[in-house]
Amino acid sequence: MKPNTQSVLRCTSRLSRHAASRSSKRTLINSASRLSLRHRAPSQTQSRGLTIADLDKSKGDRERVVILGSGWAGYPLARTLDPKKFQAVIVSPRSYFVFTPLLASTSVGTLEFRTALEPIRSRRSKARYIQGWADDVDFFNKTVTVEEAVADPNQGLALTGPRYEGKTEEEVVNVLQSKKIKGQVFNLSYDKLAIAVGCYSQTFNIPGVREHAHFLKDVGDARAIRKRLLECFEAAALPTTPDTVRRQLLTFAIVGGGPTGIEFSAELHDLCTEEMSRIYPELAEFVSITVYDVAPKVLGMFDDKLAKYAADTFKREGIAIKTSHHVENITRGLPGVEYSPASTRPGLTLKVKEEGEMGVGMVVWSTGLQMNPFVERALSTVRRFPRKEVIFKAQDQEVTDAEAKTWTIARDGRSGGLLTNDRLRVMLESNSSSGNGETRKRAFMKDVFAIGDCGVVEGTAYPATAQVANQKALYLGKRLNRNDMQQQRFTWKNLGIMAYLGNWRALVQGGSGFGNISGRTAWIIWRGAYLMMALSWKNRILIPVYWVINWIFGRDISRF
Amino acid sequence: MKPNTQSVLRCTSRLSRHAASRSSKRTLINSASRLSLRHRAPSQTQSRGLTIADLDKSKGDRERVVILGSGWAGYPLARTLDPKKFQAVIVSPRSYFVFTPLLASTSVGTLEFRTALEPIRSRRSKARYIQGWADDVDFFNKTVTVEEAVADPNQGLALTGPRYEGKTEEEVVNVLQSKKIKGQVFNLSYDKLAIAVGCYSQTFNIPGVREHAHFLKDVGDARAIRKRLLECFEAAALPTTPDTVRRQLLTFAIVGGGPTGIEFSAELHDLCTEEMSRIYPELAEFVSITVYDVAPKVLGMFDDKLAKYAADTFKREGIAIKTSHHVENITRGLPGVEYSPASTRPGLTLKVKEEGEMGVGMVVWSTGLQMNPFVERALSTVRRFPRKEVIFKAQDQEVTDAEAKTWTIARDGRSGGLLTNDRLRVMLESNSSSGNGETRKRAFMKDVFAIGDCGVVEGTAYPATAQVANQKALYLGKRLNRNDMQQQRFTWKNLGIMAYLGNWRALVQGGSGFGNISGRTAWIIWRGAYLMMALSWKNRILIPVYWVINWIFGRDISRF
Repeated sequence: MKPNTQSVLRCTSRLSRHAASRSSKRTLINSASRLSLRHRAPSQTQSRGLTIADLDKSKGDRERVVILGSGWAGYPLARTLDPKKFQAVIVSPRSYFVFTPLLASTSVGTLEFRTALEPIRSRRSKARYIQGWADDVDFFNKTVTVEEAVADPNQGLALTGPRYEGKTEEEVVNVLQSKKIKGQVFNLSYDKLAIAVGCYSQTFNIPGVREHAHFLKDVGDARAIRKRLLECFEAAALPTTPDTVRRQLLTFAIVGGGPTGIEFSAELHDLCTEEMSRIYPELAEFVSITVYDVAPKVLGMFDDKLAKYAADTFKREGIAIKTSHHVENITRGLPGVEYSPASTRPGLTLKVKEEGEMGVGMVVWSTGLQMNPFVERALSTVRRFPRKEVIFKAQDQEVTDAEAKTWTIARDGRSGGLLTNDRLRVMLESNSSSGNGETRKRAFMKDVFAIGDCGVVEGTAYPATAQVANQKALYLGKRLNRNDMQQQRFTWKNLGIMAYLGNWRALVQGGSGFGNISGRTAWIIWRGAYLMMALSWKNRILIPVYWVINWIFGRDISRF
Repeated sequence: MKPNTQSVLRCTSRLSRHAASRSSKRTLINSASRLSLRHRAPSQTQSRGLTIADLDKSKGDRERVVILGSGWAGYPLARTLDPKKFQAVIVSPRSYFVFTPLLASTSVGTLEFRTALEPIRSRRSKARYIQGWADDVDFFNKTVTVEEAVADPNQGLALTGPRYEGKTEEEVVNVLQSKKIKGQVFNLSYDKLAIAVGCYSQTFNIPGVREHAHFLKDVGDARAIRKRLLECFEAAALPTTPDTVRRQLLTFAIVGGGPTGIEFSAELHDLCTEEMSRIYPELAEFVSITVYDVAPKVLGMFDDKLAKYAADTFKREGIAIKTSHHVENITRGLPGVEYSPASTRPGLTLKVKEEGEMGVGMVVWSTGLQMNPFVERALSTVRRFPRKEVIFKAQDQEVTDAEAKTWTIARDGRSGGLLTNDRLRVMLESNSSSGNGETRKRAFMKDVFAIGDCGVVEGTAYPATAQVANQKALYLGKRLNRNDMQQQRFTWKNLGIMAYLGNWRALVQGGSGFGNISGRTAWIIWRGAYLMMALSWKNRILIPVYWVINWIFGRDISRF
């Protein structure tokens, strides 16, 4: 059997930036879904047959909940679901959950990387796991198309663009064809589907950011930052490095003045004052840390008083905050030095509109989120309307002419996220031009949920934070366990926000209950809260061990 | 100033396999040494001037001991030297010391990677450090040529071949030229020199070993093994993987039946029985571990009775030991599957002479040592005889016609290591054909020492182990501190050998004092000894914490 080029092209059209027009795309999708991978003859070039028999056998008479994603929404949902009632199957390219608030600490060595991780598979875990990317969803047949991602080379790094970006159409076709032939793409059926794929990191397509900046969304990012930081110090310490270059290598730029950028700057400052100034005393004078933001102030989500406290603290500690500044590009190599692949030295050139070009050792980028390409492209038009699965929003009417219409997945206008109702069910809409003008029909899929950053509850403006994602997941898990979704709608309970400011100081802005606190007391709350939130007992033990050990003996600066 | 091509060619000739003939090489070296990097004009394309002023300033009236290497010889020497009397400067491409006996434990997650590391730079460390490769030594002018290695991409991985191998002559010239121009190569003067560069891993040039096998000499190796292991399990767990492929991916081959190979097999077996069988119960039946060795028995350095105990233990636990087996090559991809770069799956084909081809998930290679290319090539002929630095072996005579002769560095015939006397001083020899036949003159350099695996004390056959390296370093450090080298020669005190066998069992073969012990008691000694040997208090605390935590909660199988 020849590989089906059309079906491959379908994927390509979604993945490449120049998507085919909507109608021709649909045709390709249809022809693709006819080519069910399950029915391929066993006489393949590869001996890998297609079976999810193990999974089906262990399912028993439970419902299968397929969860796409293992972040702040997907992972808690899988933990919450009652294994007696549901077979939870996580599909995610990451084999672990990242406790993101501790990433900044791990990136400077205050904590070890694995203290911020929980493996999806563990001795106690009841959830099943498939390491893969969700490629497509068929809402009519209730299957997800999954592409394996076991040895993905970008594992552990922040996602910033479509997987096949930069590849030509032809290269993508080749990759996908080869994966199909080898059975590396397969269908997984679901009874309920929770879309929790999260967002990608926003780069605003500023040249060089994706290639040369560091993000702070995954544990691989934290590791890369730690390595680069220490590399900059080591290069600056070489006897051959002149002072001008030392100053450039030890200039660290953080772009984005939200909690992530601020906390990282604070942790970096701690590292420099507590560790590096003792280990490299001769370099202390060259170090500088600068936070850039396009907005006129940082920590915009905090009260003015707290934000001012943060700004004052940073000023006192010597961290520069440059608001209303615009990064224009990042290139490899220090200014005026032609980059060559033979160079094994760190160093970047950062161009800021207001300042011009400057040499820096590292740029850490944290300017918010962009919609996941899976949500943007794969989840657009609905191939066949999943009639029986629908519940109406108003009046409990049935949709009478569903199959005759083109249904699309409703989106939040601002973020592009999946619109859901207050039960987190994904919304469909259809524009039918029948006689008296356009009427807009709406429907909700009973068994398809969007949680976390990729879903937006209609009529709300909840922030895209871990807290909201986590609350959505717990709501959904509990409602499914008790089967009482109709009785209770989702509302977000604001538990407040925190930010670490360095030197044992923090900000805590109370949600319901708490007031606003800053300084040492806030720092104790900050540490205590994260310790309590740590999901496993293992990490609840290891985290304070590292806090104490590294406070006494210093952070480890071995680099490998 | 144009870059000097000759000097670059000199390096090339050493680094490439087809070295120029000795005499022409010497000419090149001489022309190179005339091109002192210190005298280059400051009007370079790069602004990096050449100065080791900082280092010279802090030296004061102390002697500078340059130590090449940061392993079991270099690192303890730097710690032992009295900072009041000596300025210790470590030159090494690794910014940390690896406590190698614990590497196998870290490779399966029983311990965290950093518990097996000690950073060379720390709050307490008195030694100076330059991250670089020693490229050449000028014994007359007492300088070492150092090439920076801060951002070396192979950092943390076992060394298996010359750095520039695989590159054409032209490419190497380009790289080195560019490094020279940028001032990435510089000279460092010494009063005393300790060569402690260690050995590379032996591959016997078996095709595919260097590219596809994993070694276990550095922390990056341990990390790569951990990642690959978990990758194999995850790929085998995919619903699309047929049982035949599962069996291949979960076949682990260990080549080399020395303590490293045996201990790794034992740790891997522990991981499989204690962790993987619970996390992936459906895969337990597919796992197999095999140790290959060309010799007729494993653990040849142990008494027969202990070696038999090990073999019996392995047999009972289901680890196969295949002695008198010869690996012929390793290729990428499973047998019968054409490899393509689009494949993101693990899998290798291992060809064993006695068994033919088979699919395996991973090969761990541990078949001993080969001489360091720096020792083999850079340290060969002595450009100019360092007259004043010489002490005679016999009769305390001076060498009268030293400058007229060609001096080479004496070598151990078997290993190619640097021959030293029993004060660890490096030996020179000269073949002069004067009148009545050949006479062989010998000399020792007063201030040049070889310690660790790269040095061989004349007339001894001490094994190339951490224990010997460590004792040499401590001897040298103490003698230099007390300035009493003439009173005391170096002898190795055999403290015994140990090997972990898995399932809380070990072997201990006593040196002076101890008897032979096997089983649970030996395991307690094994753990206790390593804990006591851990060099820092930080690791002495963290190691038992991890032992207990991972015993209670299980090893972390997050992969990133």
